[in-house]
Amino acid sequence: MSPVFPPLREELQGIEPYGAPQLSLEQAPVQLNVNENPYGPSPEATADIARAVGEAAVSLNRYPDREFVELRTALAAYLDTSGGTGVTAEMVWAANGSNEVMLQLLQAFGGPGRVALSFAPTYSMYPEYARDTMTEWVAGHRAEDFSLDLDAARQLVLERQPSVVLLPSPNNPTGTALPPEAVTMLCEAAASYEPGGLVVVDEAYGEFRRAGTPSALELLPRHRNLVVTRTMSKAFALAGARLGYLAADPAICDAIRVVRLPYHLSAVTQATALAALRHAPELLGRVDDLRAERDETVTWLREQGFEVADSDANFVLFGRFADRHAVWQGLVDRGVLIRETGPDGWLRVSVGTPDEMAAFRQALLDTIDTTEEPA
Amino acid sequence: MSPVFPPLREELQGIEPYGAPQLSLEQAPVQLNVNENPYGPSPEATADIARAVGEAAVSLNRYPDREFVELRTALAAYLDTSGGTGVTAEMVWAANGSNEVMLQLLQAFGGPGRVALSFAPTYSMYPEYARDTMTEWVAGHRAEDFSLDLDAARQLVLERQPSVVLLPSPNNPTGTALPPEAVTMLCEAAASYEPGGLVVVDEAYGEFRRAGTPSALELLPRHRNLVVTRTMSKAFALAGARLGYLAADPAICDAIRVVRLPYHLSAVTQATALAALRHAPELLGRVDDLRAERDETVTWLREQGFEVADSDANFVLFGRFADRHAVWQGLVDRGVLIRETGPDGWLRVSVGTPDEMAAFRQALLDTIDTTEEPA
Repeated sequence: MSPVFPPLREELQGIEPYGAPQLSLEQAPVQLNVNENPYGPSPEATADIARAVGEAAVSLNRYPDREFVELRTALAAYLDTSGGTGVTAEMVWAANGSNEVMLQLLQAFGGPGRVALSFAPTYSMYPEYARDTMTEWVAGHRAEDFSLDLDAARQLVLERQPSVVLLPSPNNPTGTALPPEAVTMLCEAAASYEPGGLVVVDEAYGEFRRAGTPSALELLPRHRNLVVTRTMSKAFALAGARLGYLAADPAICDAIRVVRLPYHLSAVTQATALAALRHAPELLGRVDDLRAERDETVTWLREQGFEVADSDANFVLFGRFADRHAVWQGLVDRGVLIRETGPDGWLRVSVGTPDEMAAFRQALLDTIDTTEEPA
Repeated sequence: MSPVFPPLREELQGIEPYGAPQLSLEQAPVQLNVNENPYGPSPEATADIARAVGEAAVSLNRYPDREFVELRTALAAYLDTSGGTGVTAEMVWAANGSNEVMLQLLQAFGGPGRVALSFAPTYSMYPEYARDTMTEWVAGHRAEDFSLDLDAARQLVLERQPSVVLLPSPNNPTGTALPPEAVTMLCEAAASYEPGGLVVVDEAYGEFRRAGTPSALELLPRHRNLVVTRTMSKAFALAGARLGYLAADPAICDAIRVVRLPYHLSAVTQATALAALRHAPELLGRVDDLRAERDETVTWLREQGFEVADSDANFVLFGRFADRHAVWQGLVDRGVLIRETGPDGWLRVSVGTPDEMAAFRQALLDTIDTTEEPA
């Protein structure tokens, strides 16, 4: 046997698996690091999930509905209440988390000889999806305020002719939403070369957008190369259930079926997601609380003299720190886990309950006292 | 926009998504086409699954245990009752169905410039995993009786130097189990070149093997390049829950973590699988019934003059028919859905309940009467 065991692909050797650093609740009782919803599903939703899975369990010996028609129908109906118009089941696709949705998109539309493109700083999993599908990864750059420079973005798309453009809105880790004209401009640019590219607007945090920020779902009728992805992990408080989905032209959904693993979405997952969707109003009620808490966090951080990125998400990027790791560690020492991510000098805090945010504010003040002033 | 929309990769255009033809229960009340376990989970297991998922649902707002330690521990303990010795949690990996396990193996150990190899006729998804990971696919051939010609197999491995050898045992769709000496020989062959290959023994149907047929789990302590995969879809009657897994050297499990999507296994899936494992004895009791029914089916088909492949699985391949499609259709017309798969002239029937198998036998006799004699 080779001295290198196991015979992992050369380019994967020495790479650490993706994942936020994890600490136990004993080590850090206040966990504001992975943009989870701090509120669990309501008791009514929890009971309904248990009941639905109990019903599904009776026939778990059978493979699940390969086309998950009932779930696609329910997701389409939900999207029409969340910025969409006329979304149908045929326009919806789902998988185990939006990361599987993204992987399938790149398997179908990316691959060797093709390019996937986004604008940094952005979600750190995107380059991994590209790597795992042998798609060339190209990263343009965002402006100083994390917005897109539209002309430069358009120019880069025309130059590199990506088959997939990944546009998170709001962007992770900055919280920045895209204006509709950016989506339109890039959809048009990506439709202007052969064989054309898809523009994927990743709205994982879409439900947290501020009043007046539109969803890209509104643009679906105008651009057939537009894909809007969502997840139930955040607004629906269902990170543990792994359900990501997209809305797009039915031909795009149909094409993904060629690369999806058969029966990729379990009957248990389908039942869980359907039950949660029946409780959308109560689960989304909490989203309003979190939006208010997010806005208060932004205001408070600015009052303390920090730089804070405008946020349409359930997290806030703030800085800048000459030694951000020291600040992160200071918070951990005080029982508050946030995320050391994004451009150097910045930190990201997820929006938790009022109590958790009070703990965060106090821990941050105490840490700054003993370490440094904002740079 | 290009006349070709959407811009699917060229090599995927025109390909039909994988999946057995599906008919409704009204069209075919007896469904013996996808090797499902005809018996649902027991009422005790069903209730336990509902209870466990209800408990997990309370904290579904949190991401699941990324390393699924409790589930890996339970799977390891189970494997030690099913042919394994000293299997530990670190030696176990799991994903959403063994097809995701296989995809991850090829993502990590296959890929461009590498070869995956199996011996036809075999499971028709294998070439798709290779295609989806840009791995070159090489298919050797089985002997007339569907066994492996060991010298030829060894020669092909040495010649093509695959990084992954896929060996289903029992093989789908033929039901043929591999002798341990075949596994040993191919493990040694795959360890003799640089950087070496993994030998993946796919025991999706391993629990159905006949008395005296060993599991490749027994060989794990002797070959560090051996991977044994299993699934809860068949013996555990859990096809709808999508839980596949493998046992191998811990370094192999660790390497897969580089390519797995973070949090790929939902909290709901973990809770469901753990609950089912607690009911292993009652679920596996049904496996004995199915093995007996399988053996009776083989005997009966031979008595009618059919050629029948020896089967260690929960299905039987039989033939040969000059026009197998006509026979398949004749069975469908009589309400019995089996699978038109494998080498030309053969058909595959899954082992169902005694009533279902009686319906199959009658439908087959009636069909043969009106179509043809065995070729």
